[in-house]
Amino acid sequence: MATLKFKAKSPFEENDGRRHDVTDYKYQNYTENVSAQNKTGAPVNVAIFGLGRAGSIHLANIKANPRVNLKYIVEANTSIWDNITQHWNLKGVTFVEPKDADIVYNDENLQACFICTPTFTHEEFILGSLQGGKAVFGEKPISQDPDGTKRCYEKAAEVGKPLFCAFNRRFDPSFSSVQQKVRQGVLGHVQRVKTVSRDSPLPSMAYLKISGGIFHDCAVHDIDLITWILGEYPSEVYVAANAQIPEIAAIDDHDNVAITLKFKSGTIAMIDICRFAAYGYDQRLEVFGHSGMLDVKNDSPNKTEYSGVGETVEAPMYYSFPSRHQDGYKRELDHFLDVIQKGEKMSVTDRMTAAVSKVADACEESAKSGAPVKLSWTPEEIPEDYVML
Amino acid sequence: MATLKFKAKSPFEENDGRRHDVTDYKYQNYTENVSAQNKTGAPVNVAIFGLGRAGSIHLANIKANPRVNLKYIVEANTSIWDNITQHWNLKGVTFVEPKDADIVYNDENLQACFICTPTFTHEEFILGSLQGGKAVFGEKPISQDPDGTKRCYEKAAEVGKPLFCAFNRRFDPSFSSVQQKVRQGVLGHVQRVKTVSRDSPLPSMAYLKISGGIFHDCAVHDIDLITWILGEYPSEVYVAANAQIPEIAAIDDHDNVAITLKFKSGTIAMIDICRFAAYGYDQRLEVFGHSGMLDVKNDSPNKTEYSGVGETVEAPMYYSFPSRHQDGYKRELDHFLDVIQKGEKMSVTDRMTAAVSKVADACEESAKSGAPVKLSWTPEEIPEDYVML
Amino acid sequence: MATLKFKAKSPFEENDGRRHDVTDYKYQNYTENVSAQNKTGAPVNVAIFGLGRAGSIHLANIKANPRVNLKYIVEANTSIWDNITQHWNLKGVTFVEPKDADIVYNDENLQACFICTPTFTHEEFILGSLQGGKAVFGEKPISQDPDGTKRCYEKAAEVGKPLFCAFNRRFDPSFSSVQQKVRQGVLGHVQRVKTVSRDSPLPSMAYLKISGGIFHDCAVHDIDLITWILGEYPSEVYVAANAQIPEIAAIDDHDNVAITLKFKSGTIAMIDICRFAAYGYDQRLEVFGHSGMLDVKNDSPNKTEYSGVGETVEAPMYYSFPSRHQDGYKRELDHFLDVIQKGEKMSVTDRMTAAVSKVADACEESAKSGAPVKLSWTPEEIPEDYVML
Amino acid sequence: MATLKFKAKSPFEENDGRRHDVTDYKYQNYTENVSAQNKTGAPVNVAIFGLGRAGSIHLANIKANPRVNLKYIVEANTSIWDNITQHWNLKGVTFVEPKDADIVYNDENLQACFICTPTFTHEEFILGSLQGGKAVFGEKPISQDPDGTKRCYEKAAEVGKPLFCAFNRRFDPSFSSVQQKVRQGVLGHVQRVKTVSRDSPLPSMAYLKISGGIFHDCAVHDIDLITWILGEYPSEVYVAANAQIPEIAAIDDHDNVAITLKFKSGTIAMIDICRFAAYGYDQRLEVFGHSGMLDVKNDSPNKTEYSGVGETVEAPMYYSFPSRHQDGYKRELDHFLDVIQKGEKMSVTDRMTAAVSKVADACEESAKSGAPVKLSWTPEEIPEDYVML
Repeated sequence: MATLKFKAKSPFEENDGRRHDVTDYKYQNYTENVSAQNKTGAPVNVAIFGLGRAGSIHLANIKANPRVNLKYIVEANTSIWDNITQHWNLKGVTFVEPKDADIVYNDENLQACFICTPTFTHEEFILGSLQGGKAVFGEKPISQDPDGTKRCYEKAAEVGKPLFCAFNRRFDPSFSSVQQKVRQGVLGHVQRVKTVSRDSPLPSMAYLKISGGIFHDCAVHDIDLITWILGEYPSEVYVAANAQIPEIAAIDDHDNVAITLKFKSGTIAMIDICRFAAYGYDQRLEVFGHSGMLDVKNDSPNKTEYSGVGETVEAPMYYSFPSRHQDGYKRELDHFLDVIQKGEKMSVTDRMTAAVSKVADACEESAKSGAPVKLSWTPEEIPEDYVML
Repeated sequence: MATLKFKAKSPFEENDGRRHDVTDYKYQNYTENVSAQNKTGAPVNVAIFGLGRAGSIHLANIKANPRVNLKYIVEANTSIWDNITQHWNLKGVTFVEPKDADIVYNDENLQACFICTPTFTHEEFILGSLQGGKAVFGEKPISQDPDGTKRCYEKAAEVGKPLFCAFNRRFDPSFSSVQQKVRQGVLGHVQRVKTVSRDSPLPSMAYLKISGGIFHDCAVHDIDLITWILGEYPSEVYVAANAQIPEIAAIDDHDNVAITLKFKSGTIAMIDICRFAAYGYDQRLEVFGHSGMLDVKNDSPNKTEYSGVGETVEAPMYYSFPSRHQDGYKRELDHFLDVIQKGEKMSVTDRMTAAVSKVADACEESAKSGAPVKLSWTPEEIPEDYVML
Repeated sequence: MATLKFKAKSPFEENDGRRHDVTDYKYQNYTENVSAQNKTGAPVNVAIFGLGRAGSIHLANIKANPRVNLKYIVEANTSIWDNITQHWNLKGVTFVEPKDADIVYNDENLQACFICTPTFTHEEFILGSLQGGKAVFGEKPISQDPDGTKRCYEKAAEVGKPLFCAFNRRFDPSFSSVQQKVRQGVLGHVQRVKTVSRDSPLPSMAYLKISGGIFHDCAVHDIDLITWILGEYPSEVYVAANAQIPEIAAIDDHDNVAITLKFKSGTIAMIDICRFAAYGYDQRLEVFGHSGMLDVKNDSPNKTEYSGVGETVEAPMYYSFPSRHQDGYKRELDHFLDVIQKGEKMSVTDRMTAAVSKVADACEESAKSGAPVKLSWTPEEIPEDYVML
Repeated sequence: MATLKFKAKSPFEENDGRRHDVTDYKYQNYTENVSAQNKTGAPVNVAIFGLGRAGSIHLANIKANPRVNLKYIVEANTSIWDNITQHWNLKGVTFVEPKDADIVYNDENLQACFICTPTFTHEEFILGSLQGGKAVFGEKPISQDPDGTKRCYEKAAEVGKPLFCAFNRRFDPSFSSVQQKVRQGVLGHVQRVKTVSRDSPLPSMAYLKISGGIFHDCAVHDIDLITWILGEYPSEVYVAANAQIPEIAAIDDHDNVAITLKFKSGTIAMIDICRFAAYGYDQRLEVFGHSGMLDVKNDSPNKTEYSGVGETVEAPMYYSFPSRHQDGYKRELDHFLDVIQKGEKMSVTDRMTAAVSKVADACEESAKSGAPVKLSWTPEEIPEDYVML
């Protein structure tokens, strides 16, 4: 009874406004569903271009999200149209061949296009969609080359429509909370940012040959995440890289990469990228500053631990990006809809996309030369809420 | 270079069939989406009765799941029909008042009804749906009293349609993996099973008054989970229980409950239930046997850890059942659809529902008397894959 | 540079008195060693009776602790005297046969005796040591029976010397921090206390035959820990117990025990005890109250995690009590020395030892009868800082 | 009862030789103590030179370890001799002023000297001790400059006595298990090794001024650990470094350092060093190879977790090296004694010490120039079990 003296009022009397923590976004979503107060207006009509890996992920989320209607699927492989329709139980969705994409562009009741086709087709579909007055959700990269990317963003500016580049990691619940806390000053000035990105499974050689190389295919995600957290671009990069897998060496690409980024404010970033981890999709983030550290661990789909003779065993982390980032993709879609429906500020801008690509170029150069590569930045290259010394 | 001698073949040559672990059900789902091979045939047409908390959860999952079409919503509160339609972006869904439920029962193109209304209405809607030849997904409890439950199951048997009682915890990815492993003998004979179930947030007094009491409202979940894992029913129960919250004492219910279950095979189960945990929805499971232990921890929506002066801080566990069991509810829906579309064996049967209720009754009696209560079982009460000494 | 605005003063200027957290008792010990300010006066001269398992543990800690000098070892097995002397590199230690223990009792320069012999000899050595004016550190139990224990404590009172009963778990750094936090009100009023105590390795049958039974051999530790945390004794106990191991059944003991303790203040405790866990020495504690939960996990000697195909593997928890409680034993010794050298209040008193034994008796009775057993307490039985309704 | 079919034999009959896991070195130590079979012969007589931080740590461990006798303390500050004697309860220990160290060197009954004095005195005491025929345990660095170190090792070779350089991290139970597993091929060929070493508390400016700079004071530990795990030395280093703390900038040292090491076999190492972490002594290791990952986390002195509203809080990691590496220091002492008493191979050799210093020099150069620095190695520089392409 020694603790009876601590007995508090009844929780019914406390009336302390205790509610779910801000981190429980799933519960937040549930409360909105229970209240059923539509706060976003009429649903957005959209088209998906390309039903490969990324397209399938977005299709699942579009189907589940009441804020959006799927009107068109633009897919070159007509032989899968029926399967798609049946597997997804699609109703009222029109299939279109790429050559007939004008049908989509010209539909005045369509508000947005999701471009999930192979990279070399991005520019064409993005420009077409923008020209038709659609908001565009574009899988990374916007285009095969910087000029194409520039043309796309210029078109977006011209027609006054958002062009969103899908840097999906920003929408991971943990990564995004770190960015917010760092920008609020929880860590003080940041001394170190680190990412680990080890892919799983190993991509096919067919994909690797057209991937654009590990820096533009993979490292851009880490570079974007780090610079977005910091609000600063590096003044110098250094890369140590090689290929551990002979087939990757043969195509003159790397699979084993360590990047160092120096920032004028004193922050140093370290990026650790590998094309293949046997144990799963390993993606971590660590930010260290004067006042403390924020550290994002991997997650797993199963919280069962087995204790046996000589070992304690947990389930492996998520196997690959579609499961690891399942929630992030949903949140990314909601962000894009917030931009369209509520006029919210778009998270990823033209300057960011260009800057990340410029840093990736410098990394590629450093990997080749073995020497550090300096970077300088004009004010026009810096996004508005980023700050450079 | 001391490790270079361990260099293996290229992973491209290894051809070792390495793929995602069985625990990564989200990745499994993704691969099925990418392949887009509909393996389940025509979608199931369904009606939802009641759009409260449970109904909203099922509505979200039904909308997201391509295996099912929502045709009707039966909802007494006509004033929310418009909001529902808009919030959920419903198309082709007919709203029906409960008094007109015959429209639903008589629709020959409808295959299943989800009964999510207040408990006192369950029996009416279940019997009506079954009579109409629909499969029924019923929120727990099937009926307010054992006789009503019996009538429902008899009707289901008579019409040859599945009546599923939604013990959702069985579909939690971690809990279900424990059941499978225990039944495979991973732990040898089980000596101990333990559950913790502490609710969050504190339910309203309005709800508590009609909840049926903590044993039938809460403990049935733990009893079901434990006996399903073991495949055995207890021969004796003992309960220590009281009310820490005065308002709950005033309605003669308990909020602080410790249950001991004795099984003839020697297993002892311990259940720890509280109506209110300040820190979140705390739900754990532990099974201990001769060869080891399986232990399911709580999960949280955010994997960021903060290290600061004098503390290491992680995000709190999920706040409540809708977020904690989000994945379980989806898997539960898929199970119900598997029963309908593939003829799979239904996980929760009439005998199980009745047996769990019988154990809850014994717990209630023990809580009142303060003495252990013995239970005996006839062969007719035991589900086919359960085994009693 | 977005975080440069958060740049703080130099840590050299901050002068914020940042120092080690109170939990880092090892660092505290180190700082005392570096300062080398002897704050405890002349070392305490001691004798150890019995060099079995417990005696060896205490010998190692006595040797390492500068606050104490070992003068005598009383050990019946004269054949191991030489081995002991050499293995431990003993200098100036006199070996004595039990029959000559008067040499020890009569040494005026000796302050304390550690009684680590078989239980049936405890009373004789304790009474002899006390009669000789020595403080006594007694391994649990003080005596084979309550009367003997009473005689020992009466003698201690008579001669004015401390008689310490070694409930070692109280000195576990984590367990003791929980007790302090609970008593400070961190959790508010406590609703639930739970312990898990699964032994490893399985004791020998020779030991089990003379162990006094699982309630007096094992459960007393859990009962002491729980009642010490709460500062309250139970008003009722209920036990479910059986023997899973045939040899233990054959000696009419139990190896599989679930105890429920009811407290008048409303707290309910649940104790989970097993004689054998294949995966290590499993000892956990959980306290749950209105404001939150404190939870002590198992620890392991190795913090390496292996991530491989299909699994994440950590080292197993400590194998047995000597490694798991290595730090606790050291802290227990320091407590005993604090009692002698600084006159600090002894943690474990005669009333506590008797009360714990009384509760264990009730548990034994409940295990036999299968019915709950009520307990009542006189004011004389309650330790001064414990509070009963 | 569904699990009763899995009931195994009684553990008494199983006779399966189940025993403690190899990781539980504390239990192993306990079993040796209980058996009391001295397997190492007569204790080693030793002297400690210098009772600062390191000296105090070794003194505590020497006192606790029965394999060793402390005969002398060589300490310049005569005013603390009395305090030391009393605090540590020393008996039979002779205090000597450094100027009279010949007394120590000439004692034929002394086998080993622990040199824990300021760096600038190391060479003198090491040479003196070796000349006197003593084994030497030398705190890092062996000498202020490479030539001095060479002279020391040459003297050791000449007199045939071990000179041990105390790279204490090798003896951390987790780090050493990683080295063993990597060398056994558990990970296949290693692609990445990473260390984090963030110091706590911030050292004093007095110390920093004589520390030798962050590369020779701190980075040598990481370089040694990494190259010892790999059995290979780097062919190139690149360093990004700056000073976040103005006082450290003022003495032209760094406090914020990122090192990249390239190895010919393809491994890339990344070292992350900071002089000050507000949250504790942060020291981690990660090794990643073709088959998996080994990852050593930080540890903490307290395993209590608090779950409260909006947070889950654990105790902070250890505050500083004396508590974090308490066990490692004990194991280091045992290793040194194994070298002397059992003729075991010394873990740290002259070539390793020199090579680590050479890599640190290259790091220093890279930090200054901002360019990568190449390293080449002659066969004479490579330890026997290291392998270079």
